[in-house]
Amino acid sequence: MSENKAYRELTPYLERIMALQTAQILFEWDSETLAPVEAAPYTARAVGILSESYYRTVTDEKVKELIRVCREEGGLTEAEDAVIRELSEEAKQLDCVPAEEYREFAELTAESAVIWAKARKENDFDAFAPTLEKVLDYQKRFASYRAKDGQKLYDVILDSYEKGFNMENLDRFFEKLKETLVPFIRKLENSGTEIEDGFLTGDYSRQKQEEAARFLAEYVGFDFSKGVLGESAHPFTTNLHNHDVRITTAYSDHVDDSLFSVIHECGHALYELGIPDELTQTLAGQGASMGMHESQSRFYENIIGRSRAFWEPVYPRLQKIFPQQLGGISLDRFVHAVNKVQPGLIRTQADELTYSLHILIRYEIEKMLIEDNLPVNELPQVWADKYEEYLGVRPEKASEGVLQDIHWSQGSFGYFPSYALGNAFGAQIYFHMKKQMDIDGLLREGKLAAITDYLREHIHRYGKLKTSRQLLKEVTGEDFNPEYYTDYLIDKYSRLYGI
Amino acid sequence: MSENKAYRELTPYLERIMALQTAQILFEWDSETLAPVEAAPYTARAVGILSESYYRTVTDEKVKELIRVCREEGGLTEAEDAVIRELSEEAKQLDCVPAEEYREFAELTAESAVIWAKARKENDFDAFAPTLEKVLDYQKRFASYRAKDGQKLYDVILDSYEKGFNMENLDRFFEKLKETLVPFIRKLENSGTEIEDGFLTGDYSRQKQEEAARFLAEYVGFDFSKGVLGESAHPFTTNLHNHDVRITTAYSDHVDDSLFSVIHECGHALYELGIPDELTQTLAGQGASMGMHESQSRFYENIIGRSRAFWEPVYPRLQKIFPQQLGGISLDRFVHAVNKVQPGLIRTQADELTYSLHILIRYEIEKMLIEDNLPVNELPQVWADKYEEYLGVRPEKASEGVLQDIHWSQGSFGYFPSYALGNAFGAQIYFHMKKQMDIDGLLREGKLAAITDYLREHIHRYGKLKTSRQLLKEVTGEDFNPEYYTDYLIDKYSRLYGI
Repeated sequence: MSENKAYRELTPYLERIMALQTAQILFEWDSETLAPVEAAPYTARAVGILSESYYRTVTDEKVKELIRVCREEGGLTEAEDAVIRELSEEAKQLDCVPAEEYREFAELTAESAVIWAKARKENDFDAFAPTLEKVLDYQKRFASYRAKDGQKLYDVILDSYEKGFNMENLDRFFEKLKETLVPFIRKLENSGTEIEDGFLTGDYSRQKQEEAARFLAEYVGFDFSKGVLGESAHPFTTNLHNHDVRITTAYSDHVDDSLFSVIHECGHALYELGIPDELTQTLAGQGASMGMHESQSRFYENIIGRSRAFWEPVYPRLQKIFPQQLGGISLDRFVHAVNKVQPGLIRTQADELTYSLHILIRYEIEKMLIEDNLPVNELPQVWADKYEEYLGVRPEKASEGVLQDIHWSQGSFGYFPSYALGNAFGAQIYFHMKKQMDIDGLLREGKLAAITDYLREHIHRYGKLKTSRQLLKEVTGEDFNPEYYTDYLIDKYSRLYGI
Repeated sequence: MSENKAYRELTPYLERIMALQTAQILFEWDSETLAPVEAAPYTARAVGILSESYYRTVTDEKVKELIRVCREEGGLTEAEDAVIRELSEEAKQLDCVPAEEYREFAELTAESAVIWAKARKENDFDAFAPTLEKVLDYQKRFASYRAKDGQKLYDVILDSYEKGFNMENLDRFFEKLKETLVPFIRKLENSGTEIEDGFLTGDYSRQKQEEAARFLAEYVGFDFSKGVLGESAHPFTTNLHNHDVRITTAYSDHVDDSLFSVIHECGHALYELGIPDELTQTLAGQGASMGMHESQSRFYENIIGRSRAFWEPVYPRLQKIFPQQLGGISLDRFVHAVNKVQPGLIRTQADELTYSLHILIRYEIEKMLIEDNLPVNELPQVWADKYEEYLGVRPEKASEGVLQDIHWSQGSFGYFPSYALGNAFGAQIYFHMKKQMDIDGLLREGKLAAITDYLREHIHRYGKLKTSRQLLKEVTGEDFNPEYYTDYLIDKYSRLYGI
């Protein structure tokens, strides 16, 4: 029990906030993995009402007063202090949005992912456009309520995902990626090196892919006594608390999609499983930021997950699961194939090198939607043009273009840059870790726990006690520096392509 | 919008109650079908808090006042009137239980089903006993809070499941069953007729059983666009609303277990799918009573589901799914096998004839637990003795005895009699329906929709607008009369056994 009297008084409110959040997470998980197709409009009512209760609890005048008294009184533990900070932040965010609109938006997004999934399946952008327009409209309106004097709307949104990041520094970051990567990719394309990856596509049965997914998840350290592996149109990770962390994947005829999406989601999951009991089920009991979360998922997926050392001990097991498809493929050919650079249409299938260009495109389009009022119906065109410009490919269908990602359907504008930042955070952390441990050696011996322990010790266990920039500084000794990421990519792919 | 001003004022409270109920249902579903084993104690916290919110909303002084004003003001629609009646009833039930205890109990039952499932799996009654004792203690305490002058605790509990039923009339009902069925079963056993059913047990793969389950569910009318089929230790049906109704089954090496449990749960599901939009997501939007619910599930499972006419059009399909096991078994042999009378240990595997004796045993034990303070640790012994006395079999293991049912773990004392009442309601309804339609003829032609339409028209669409006794009277023209049930059983089994 807290030493601080006001904090003790605040506890029932904090508990209710946590319980309502947990319920909403379960509804989201359920709607994306299991709920019957016709349920959404009805379930949305219940979700809307719970989210209104959440809103009213966070913005309760009594809560605001207790936050103030808590701070005056002092004597808070580090965790309590973080909770108060998060609560006060959340209250500020919500306070400027009218309750009615907050609830309407929750109802809308409880349905919109289902509408998106259907439109994507049927390749019908027009069926999704009106919903997307509504979602976008709410997001812009909410940002305008939150904007301080003269603050740009997209900056308001970006800040909510990653404190201290805005269009100014993200423009610089993406510019750096563009000027380094675009010519480098061209160089690789002209190198004459051909990597064969046809064997990754074919008759990989769903059942066998699930067997491989479960094996990899466990290998990486995902604990099935505290977790679930599900299936959804778009892979994601969610958690009710540190003893119930859930990942999903999607199975297609490209076996590498499910293999690497599972390793990716496990990266997120290990973060949430690493939150200590004292923090879970509190407002400080999640990852520090979306960018830091993606640094973990993409570290597992790419930096270690696509390395030769990672596959050395486990590739034979994969061959056993898919004897017909991989039995005759050597480890080297496999590792080359899963790292093949191939500018393509689908972000989640992108290789590590072109990946950030997919993000760049989304970043630029989000800016246009929010800052320049690009009409939603022009999206497919703009999307296709940008893909042609940066990646040299053009989508024929909306399902391969603007409908491929779930994010916008849920109002998650501003999320995409986190992926690119996550890549860069991850590379910076990796550079430092290598000075302290022989990562390739550990991977070759199958000792993933040693790597996860390091990340748990230095990042996961803090939850939201520290910001992502603080963590980065403490782990690497310096502020965010995207050089590590571009250096890492150039080095890795120069070696792979022998240039 | 309601004509009644107080009702309009009450609406936000009613909506919150509905949303909190929906969340609790989803948590229950999730915990029994999917949640990881270690999640329960943490998730229970969130569930406890939500259930406290539910409690506080229902028992809010403002709500009570609005109920009063609503009634004074008048002009309520039939549905509104039923909602007010249910709300006022629920408020009365909860008001006498302290908030703290209500929450503690919700937390306890969010965990107890998991503890039960583990104990059952490990055949360890002692691991479950302390939890059961706590649950029982709460139920007795709650009943004592609710009891009117001199009312017996078990009567208080029974009334909450089935209005107007108590130990006095249930004793009579079970006495009637006992005196009719026990000698009749003996007669069958001595008839010399041997029914062969060995082919129902064996290497029935889980996957094929699921295929059969999905086929049967659809055949019976379960709509997968509004429903889900899951798997759990104990089959059950639940629903978020009339567009999201979920059934589960369990797969064992007895294929008839899953086949008939699916038809049984579909009977429940059709009831909930038949609730109209105006009633769903309100307090009047569920089945009239547990007994009426069981009348539907057991009507589908037994009265029609185990009839020759039902299987005539679909048995060839079942043979196709299980060619090795059933290919050489004629329709008649199959139908005889699934109706074989065989006094056994497991309620859910019991034939239709001995089934009610399983319920009788539970009824008598519940009376002992609640009225005579039978100590929980004596349960396995008492259970075994009663099985030996009534059914001539004695469980060797708790998992085949007192641990077989989930009900008590969740505090559902008083539920079991609903199964027997449901059987009797169903037979009474069936007797009447047969005068109006050629049920066997419809079944032979695969026209199940005509049967479901009748039940929907006369029972399902009313939700809780009418009580089960009212419905029974309107459908059959008379009050509850268990003769139909005993007559039905004697007639059916005399023909099957040729006596």
